[in-house]
Amino acid sequence: MDLPINNLGVVKRNIVRADPAAVDKLARFGVATIHEAMGRVGLMKPYMRPIYPRAAICGTAVTVLLQPGDNWMMHVAAEQLRPGDVVVAACTTDNEDGFFGDLLATSFQARGAKGLIIDAGVRDVTELEKMNFPVFSRAIHAKGTIKATLGSVNIPVVCAGAIVNPGDVVVADADGVVVVPAAIAQQVADAAEKRESFEGEKRAKLAAGVLGLDMYSMRGPLEKAGLKYID
Amino acid sequence: MDLPINNLGVVKRNIVRADPAAVDKLARFGVATIHEAMGRVGLMKPYMRPIYPRAAICGTAVTVLLQPGDNWMMHVAAEQLRPGDVVVAACTTDNEDGFFGDLLATSFQARGAKGLIIDAGVRDVTELEKMNFPVFSRAIHAKGTIKATLGSVNIPVVCAGAIVNPGDVVVADADGVVVVPAAIAQQVADAAEKRESFEGEKRAKLAAGVLGLDMYSMRGPLEKAGLKYID
Amino acid sequence: MDLPINNLGVVKRNIVRADPAAVDKLARFGVATIHEAMGRVGLMKPYMRPIYPRAAICGTAVTVLLQPGDNWMMHVAAEQLRPGDVVVAACTTDNEDGFFGDLLATSFQARGAKGLIIDAGVRDVTELEKMNFPVFSRAIHAKGTIKATLGSVNIPVVCAGAIVNPGDVVVADADGVVVVPAAIAQQVADAAEKRESFEGEKRAKLAAGVLGLDMYSMRGPLEKAGLKYID
Amino acid sequence: MDLPINNLGVVKRNIVRADPAAVDKLARFGVATIHEAMGRVGLMKPYMRPIYPRAAICGTAVTVLLQPGDNWMMHVAAEQLRPGDVVVAACTTDNEDGFFGDLLATSFQARGAKGLIIDAGVRDVTELEKMNFPVFSRAIHAKGTIKATLGSVNIPVVCAGAIVNPGDVVVADADGVVVVPAAIAQQVADAAEKRESFEGEKRAKLAAGVLGLDMYSMRGPLEKAGLKYID
Amino acid sequence: MDLPINNLGVVKRNIVRADPAAVDKLARFGVATIHEAMGRVGLMKPYMRPIYPRAAICGTAVTVLLQPGDNWMMHVAAEQLRPGDVVVAACTTDNEDGFFGDLLATSFQARGAKGLIIDAGVRDVTELEKMNFPVFSRAIHAKGTIKATLGSVNIPVVCAGAIVNPGDVVVADADGVVVVPAAIAQQVADAAEKRESFEGEKRAKLAAGVLGLDMYSMRGPLEKAGLKYID
Amino acid sequence: MDLPINNLGVVKRNIVRADPAAVDKLARFGVATIHEAMGRVGLMKPYMRPIYPRAAICGTAVTVLLQPGDNWMMHVAAEQLRPGDVVVAACTTDNEDGFFGDLLATSFQARGAKGLIIDAGVRDVTELEKMNFPVFSRAIHAKGTIKATLGSVNIPVVCAGAIVNPGDVVVADADGVVVVPAAIAQQVADAAEKRESFEGEKRAKLAAGVLGLDMYSMRGPLEKAGLKYID
Repeated sequence: MDLPINNLGVVKRNIVRADPAAVDKLARFGVATIHEAMGRVGLMKPYMRPIYPRAAICGTAVTVLLQPGDNWMMHVAAEQLRPGDVVVAACTTDNEDGFFGDLLATSFQARGAKGLIIDAGVRDVTELEKMNFPVFSRAIHAKGTIKATLGSVNIPVVCAGAIVNPGDVVVADADGVVVVPAAIAQQVADAAEKRESFEGEKRAKLAAGVLGLDMYSMRGPLEKAGLKYID
Repeated sequence: MDLPINNLGVVKRNIVRADPAAVDKLARFGVATIHEAMGRVGLMKPYMRPIYPRAAICGTAVTVLLQPGDNWMMHVAAEQLRPGDVVVAACTTDNEDGFFGDLLATSFQARGAKGLIIDAGVRDVTELEKMNFPVFSRAIHAKGTIKATLGSVNIPVVCAGAIVNPGDVVVADADGVVVVPAAIAQQVADAAEKRESFEGEKRAKLAAGVLGLDMYSMRGPLEKAGLKYID
Repeated sequence: MDLPINNLGVVKRNIVRADPAAVDKLARFGVATIHEAMGRVGLMKPYMRPIYPRAAICGTAVTVLLQPGDNWMMHVAAEQLRPGDVVVAACTTDNEDGFFGDLLATSFQARGAKGLIIDAGVRDVTELEKMNFPVFSRAIHAKGTIKATLGSVNIPVVCAGAIVNPGDVVVADADGVVVVPAAIAQQVADAAEKRESFEGEKRAKLAAGVLGLDMYSMRGPLEKAGLKYID
Repeated sequence: MDLPINNLGVVKRNIVRADPAAVDKLARFGVATIHEAMGRVGLMKPYMRPIYPRAAICGTAVTVLLQPGDNWMMHVAAEQLRPGDVVVAACTTDNEDGFFGDLLATSFQARGAKGLIIDAGVRDVTELEKMNFPVFSRAIHAKGTIKATLGSVNIPVVCAGAIVNPGDVVVADADGVVVVPAAIAQQVADAAEKRESFEGEKRAKLAAGVLGLDMYSMRGPLEKAGLKYID
Repeated sequence: MDLPINNLGVVKRNIVRADPAAVDKLARFGVATIHEAMGRVGLMKPYMRPIYPRAAICGTAVTVLLQPGDNWMMHVAAEQLRPGDVVVAACTTDNEDGFFGDLLATSFQARGAKGLIIDAGVRDVTELEKMNFPVFSRAIHAKGTIKATLGSVNIPVVCAGAIVNPGDVVVADADGVVVVPAAIAQQVADAAEKRESFEGEKRAKLAAGVLGLDMYSMRGPLEKAGLKYID
Repeated sequence: MDLPINNLGVVKRNIVRADPAAVDKLARFGVATIHEAMGRVGLMKPYMRPIYPRAAICGTAVTVLLQPGDNWMMHVAAEQLRPGDVVVAACTTDNEDGFFGDLLATSFQARGAKGLIIDAGVRDVTELEKMNFPVFSRAIHAKGTIKATLGSVNIPVVCAGAIVNPGDVVVADADGVVVVPAAIAQQVADAAEKRESFEGEKRAKLAAGVLGLDMYSMRGPLEKAGLKYID
């Protein structure tokens, strides 16, 4: 088949989703912990915010590339959704129109989707909260969109500064959104678990008044770096 | 009378407010629905946000043009308020000072005002929430203002990118702020009602798993546009 | 001792904190009132926002100057904290990384700190709310930081546009953040009290329908300035 | 004829352009002077910048309302242009795509247009400078647009915060863009001339070392306001 | 070899650069034309601007992933440069520090590099212009950086919203920056050539006064879409 | 004398200016070099840009604190200027109005001022360039200001994120603006000179193809940090 050089106008049907066990395990950890477990990469930009308090998502990415002011591809994406998926929508240019509202959310939810990450605007946010359909977006905007130009579904996209491949795990909570490549999902989940296992002890020590200066043995390095105490 | 060429220093007392029945009807619909009913125009920019959750407003505009760092005209506007009005305040330049707080809100509320839309900053937001006085603003800022320079009341203003004429209907909810010209308020309310009447059926179908692709008969147009499915 | 010309790499141990009685008194007033009592100065920029609803802080500043992407000095600051202190953290350049999370908060809280004001990002915001540890920041961001470069503790800093000297009183609520120099804390608290004592009467009058135009005797000055009423 | 309630999809052919003599006279003054002559109103927001140094425009507005990512209406506008016109383009939502390039400029220039003011992006800026076709825009962006959705030509628009009616005079220079309503163009031109006639004398005095404090008799008012000199 | 899961701390030495003939051909076209030839994808965000007028670049990407406030990897990248390369630098977080100045430029230029694309800040811009070393950046900032933390060289990066793989062709001019994947460089160059070959004729027609409405046969579609002309 | 607690409404006449020899020496170095010589502090934020190419300033600060939309204090400042001074203007809130134009520049220049640094807007920029009066500002805006509220002259101010005391040396060039405290001006000038003396040799080596990796002996530390080369 003669595919376009730019990947536009393409829907990939068969994508390799991350292992469900790894996704489930990742769901137990916060975004900050997961991103640390990956070595401090994979975060979307901090302008991506939940549209209501306590919204949280963990699932496998079905990606969408939108055109400005046009949400046609969101309907195309709906058909590709499987239970446990998260729609990750990018746009070919910065645009804060409301590409998504309660009707599309009803459709996505009916297909088993766990939420939406969109580097653009959404609307009907009161209804979305009532539906318990979590969304992380760059804006809330009532502005409606048209259905006139092709984008793509399930191609690699850049969403809010992060590369997202279809099937990757996307985790979102109050601290932001992180993308875990499908191939390393289990490895990252394990590293997150390990990291978190150390935190309880640290927290107890700090709560008891032990200083990080001592707990992390920082006094020597600080002195060596030249830190001076004065009165 | 010799009026200034720039409309500054003017208070228009008699304005034509939208028909109360139309205002009441518009209050039943969300901002997204109303803006769609108007053909996707009339929205303020999405940086206008409610200062507390679930704030919502629907009423007739009394407009104010402010000078930077100066809220004198807000007091002049108070006298022009009638029950059911909404104050819509613009500024001659971008300025996030706190032009409005709980004292002015007490005065506006005593006059029957239903809320404030201001393309600038406000303060005392905790008290405003307690008073149940809804405000949509571009910023929250404690910075106080002076009373030294004339602006105007009830002239046409541009507020957050939208033209507002005194008497227009202004509707605000979690999705943003929309302005409906007084002359078409009833027509827009009817169109909103009609639009919403279709939504229940659509929602039920989508909830049952019908795809938008089929419900909206998009498959043909998508194929014609060149959409390609790959595996 | 040979101090660096730029104050970097310095920790000042003995700082003069504002009088506790003045701090306690200031805690009774809102940020807007305090800033008015100071003559409308001392505010941080309005991009500083609480990370959870109803967060509020009043305490004496322990200042920190951070390097981009590096939170080493936060640990150094912990040791300098006394009950009633507030950490005020600035950075040598604009940076929204998450310099602070629940572990540091545990340590700060164990030392008696009342909160954090940081012109940068923080993370673990759900946990911080559960801990009831208030934070005002420019961003929420999961991005972790390193510990490699010296900054300083308890030097004068510019935080979100405001000069903060160690020991100054910092007050934060839903309206923003204000800094009261230690030397005038009592004077400002008294002025705030006086200012607020007038507000009850004003509020009652306005609630009864008296206009600010009359209560503040504005009609004469407005007429003199040239205000014109038209029909 | 049954017109849409939202003015979309409409082209008004006969517009009342400002008097050519007034336009010519306004062309002699800078944007700052003209806006002062109007009493400090009529300016677009300062993010509107020339795409090349020394670009300047003065002409009568042919207005365009664009849809995001869609420049169809620019072609419709071309037909409505007469010598001396300036195209003023707004968009129904914030969008920085490149709606305009050298081909459209060639067409506009062939129709006698004097330039473009656009609250969006443009491209081919090197060619536009070579063509000596001045443009003031909010962005420079290579991103192309489609031709799919109707907007309007020659309806009132809000462009970068300013109301522009077709036929109004638009003046742009290095200080920004100002809109002069057609009905007061001559009056404003006269006021600008008068204002400028005073400037030469003032400049000479100031150049000779006379202080504004004395030239404008500010010492009394400053003292009365409470200004204190200390040593 | 045991590689890190996050690709940090890695330098890839052997990369597949785009075919030199394709690069040379792409250099003949502007960014807007190339991006159109690709179907309107591949652009960086429009905040990327040249640091001096008439700066332009076309070459093969050597990619760098930086840490905030740390330019260590720029030195590592220098060694990987071959004549005709362009350094494309991204950062793990938004940061406007001056990661690059005239000394690094001297080194890059000595290695044959044709310029720098950096989603961060640079300094010594006067010297860079004198050296004729073109740079496109998000900011100009004198702020210096440290050398403490590993990033990577020649891994895929997201730079200003665009995915860049090492070896891709990067073209920058006054209209922005576009990335052409190495595998389709020749195909895109050919499409750009074809596209441009049509432009001369169009330009001549438009210059002669032919309207785009007629040249592109838009009148029918506009009428069908409902466009109304009124007087 | 009874001074206001907030320093507003005060003009300090006798300020201690930095030593002229130190100022002259600092004028020989660029902003990046001086800020490095101070240990990477003292910079204003990078949004401060020259209003015309090749603008550069080095002089002693006369500080001004402005109120939003009000340039009264600029006239008060003019009287305090001595040859070699630079006016550094901050505002009590973010405001981009045009506080300064060619008339004030004429006055400042007549008093011997070398330029203006203003964290706000200016206008008449074409004339300012013709007058060769350099200005660094956050915006260019034609919007005029009033003269109604007191600010201060020669108090410490925060300008674009930097503390400036009257008499400090302010240096501005294409890379930004740096503030050198008067007390360390000579020390910083000497350090800048020393720093620059090393640059020529480095530049020559790099131009000859020596890598920074070798010149700075980075290979060991990079390996120790874990850098891996792959093919």
